[in-house]
Amino acid sequence: MGAVTKDGKEIADRSREIVKTKISEVLGKNVVLYSKDEMGIIERVVHATADPEYSKLVNFDNKPIEHGLKAINDESPIIADISMVKAGIRYEDVLCTISEKKVFEVAKKEQVTRAVASIRASKELIDGGIVVIGNAPTALLEVIRLNKKEGITPKLVIGAPVGFVKAAESKELLRTTKIPSISTIGPKGGTPVAVSAINGIIALSKNERI
Amino acid sequence: MGAVTKDGKEIADRSREIVKTKISEVLGKNVVLYSKDEMGIIERVVHATADPEYSKLVNFDNKPIEHGLKAINDESPIIADISMVKAGIRYEDVLCTISEKKVFEVAKKEQVTRAVASIRASKELIDGGIVVIGNAPTALLEVIRLNKKEGITPKLVIGAPVGFVKAAESKELLRTTKIPSISTIGPKGGTPVAVSAINGIIALSKNERI
Repeated sequence: MGAVTKDGKEIADRSREIVKTKISEVLGKNVVLYSKDEMGIIERVVHATADPEYSKLVNFDNKPIEHGLKAINDESPIIADISMVKAGIRYEDVLCTISEKKVFEVAKKEQVTRAVASIRASKELIDGGIVVIGNAPTALLEVIRLNKKEGITPKLVIGAPVGFVKAAESKELLRTTKIPSISTIGPKGGTPVAVSAINGIIALSKNERI
Repeated sequence: MGAVTKDGKEIADRSREIVKTKISEVLGKNVVLYSKDEMGIIERVVHATADPEYSKLVNFDNKPIEHGLKAINDESPIIADISMVKAGIRYEDVLCTISEKKVFEVAKKEQVTRAVASIRASKELIDGGIVVIGNAPTALLEVIRLNKKEGITPKLVIGAPVGFVKAAESKELLRTTKIPSISTIGPKGGTPVAVSAINGIIALSKNERI
């Protein structure tokens, strides 16, 4: 995906077929529970991780593809939790402040994680923006806190923080909100998951094959 | 891992303990087959993916940590296959040419993947450098081809391309060479795997806790 040559496209096409088969094996009859566009996102995630288990781990809440598409078409900014996530997103306006000196200083001073300080520093953009989280559970928890306490409301959250501490819980909490979201169940997630999900929506907005 | 605050460090510490337990559950008695430094790399990979299966998928061939440490201490350049991988590596001198216009043009003209064109464009640096591949099997296959046909010899290859087409085979082929390498068995791999492995060696070179 992003392939420009015959060789690259052949690999992508063969991969797509295998990915579809793997997803069918995992989901069985439940395949019918997903829309075509949702299945396109799941295919991208399984393609990016080579891990068919994601077929049953990706959750869609509050019409995230519909809201995400509108946000992309409105040229809403995307706020990423880490630089790796930013680097992977195929979109003009992607912001990530985690490596900024000021964020580092605020984190030390207020004794919060850099991820939390980074989300706070971007909250004006997050309100009405798209948040993509591929690493830090504390970043996702801060987005949810800002939503509850200050009414900060993203148009879409891709919630794929990874890890055995707080990641699963942060995503469960996200799914209790009214924020449109795509998230993974359990500890698994990560940069390729988050990036492939948002790139799927960006591709849809350009009428590319998802 | 990169945590600067009490909160961040607590999460990292708790995560580390859980990761160790998960690895022990997967490896059982085979835990003793790995050196302390190798186990440190495996811990980072499982931490980055929250996927304990990686405990048994990470391979170390031809003393990769020893050679990698020497290469890092010699300030050898790191060549990454994609921008996401580059963005995650905590090192000064990381190069990735895949998004360069010239690489795009060469790929189209010669009908190879952009990843292959990108590796060819960097081959002078790859000879004696460190190659980190977190996405493209064709990039890894090109590194191996350059090694066999032109004697281009990296000091270390992190081989973690991902996917159901060519990825597993490319890594198997890597393991038949004499190049020091860390690679994953099977289709799984990806940016977090590649990045956490090389960052583990970089941390070791600074005497940080791996």
